[in-house]
Amino acid sequence: MTTPYQLYYWDGLQGRGEFVRLALEEAAIPYADVARQKKGMPALMASLDGGQVDHPSFAPPVLQAGGMLIGQTSNILMFLGARHGLAPRAQEGRLWANQLQLTICDIVAEAHDTHHPISTGKYYEEQKKEAKARSKDFRLHRIPKFLDYFEGVVTRNPGRGGWAIGSRLSYVDLSLFQLIEGLRYAFPKTMTKLAPSYPALTALHDQVAARPNIVAYVASQRRIPFNEDGIFRHYPELDK
Amino acid sequence: MTTPYQLYYWDGLQGRGEFVRLALEEAAIPYADVARQKKGMPALMASLDGGQVDHPSFAPPVLQAGGMLIGQTSNILMFLGARHGLAPRAQEGRLWANQLQLTICDIVAEAHDTHHPISTGKYYEEQKKEAKARSKDFRLHRIPKFLDYFEGVVTRNPGRGGWAIGSRLSYVDLSLFQLIEGLRYAFPKTMTKLAPSYPALTALHDQVAARPNIVAYVASQRRIPFNEDGIFRHYPELDK
Repeated sequence: MTTPYQLYYWDGLQGRGEFVRLALEEAAIPYADVARQKKGMPALMASLDGGQVDHPSFAPPVLQAGGMLIGQTSNILMFLGARHGLAPRAQEGRLWANQLQLTICDIVAEAHDTHHPISTGKYYEEQKKEAKARSKDFRLHRIPKFLDYFEGVVTRNPGRGGWAIGSRLSYVDLSLFQLIEGLRYAFPKTMTKLAPSYPALTALHDQVAARPNIVAYVASQRRIPFNEDGIFRHYPELDK
Repeated sequence: MTTPYQLYYWDGLQGRGEFVRLALEEAAIPYADVARQKKGMPALMASLDGGQVDHPSFAPPVLQAGGMLIGQTSNILMFLGARHGLAPRAQEGRLWANQLQLTICDIVAEAHDTHHPISTGKYYEEQKKEAKARSKDFRLHRIPKFLDYFEGVVTRNPGRGGWAIGSRLSYVDLSLFQLIEGLRYAFPKTMTKLAPSYPALTALHDQVAARPNIVAYVASQRRIPFNEDGIFRHYPELDK
């Protein structure tokens, strides 16, 4: 028996793979988290290796859907969203969902660079001084700028229900939930201070957190806890 | 008389807007480069302002297509590519094109951070020391890693013609051309040294540069020269 989808992502961290996992879990789509299975790492590496597949990815996450290998987080979510009712049906709505997801990916990349501002190949401890400077800028300027934007998107959405787009949950809502979870984990002091400014995002986060499939997922072994191998890392010295 | 498309992007620099311009120019689609016209800046700002439009963008480029405002470079290219024959027709090819474009956007973001590793809100001169460190890592590790990947994509493409996807030019080829142009401008020594390793990318670049519409565009006033306000900046100290 094989599941319809195989997800390839590093074991031991949520990272960008988590945005894909949340979509699969919310839509109750069976999937295999390949790298977390026995002998999973060689399978993951093969999905990145140009010698063995037609469309290798530069980096995980990669989703295998039948004969297709799909890379890049927002691209995978666009594909899953259209197939499984997690995105608007019309082209304009699809493009808007993709645009918002790409903007979420932008702040996620910046969150990564708070602890790795100089080199992804070096340890955090080797770039700690620069990480402090970049984190300060991220906390003071970038988090508010992005959250102001997303708060406005949710507030101005004419659809009912408090979602980002229209009147139904989409993968963008799942990703906003994960963004807020991640920022709260990495920058708890900052986020506690900022929370009152973002009532619509907080309500959206809580709605996603209360979805039965998300409740079950977060309580399961399949949800890897946040940790200091992922994108959102809690280093107290970066959240002064 | 109005043109079908209005492009909103900062005046005076190529930046991310250039990837959109190249697609519009290659497909010979009439467009207005709004911010470069008289009173263009207020129009640009309105496209980003949530009070005045339904789907405001976090940042330019923004493309207006009839009543639609579309933001995020890869999203705009996906839209234009599908409409104007600059992308594969089947879903799998479309996803693959989008995946490659997203990977190009990733290295473009890293190229930006070589001169702004700490804060986008501060001047280069205020983060010069960190910029040197990040640029060294970018030159030694990141450029080769990305170009190895793209060289492999072009080499393994079973289609004829030396393009990235299939047997026809797509927006991905235009973006690879611009990426190589930008890297050559910003890091001429590094790129001269690396060039022999990337014959397929060099040939692809040269093919795009020889397209009649691209030749005409690059020779026109519409092409803004590379400069130190853009994403690809030539600071000799970062290309040691």
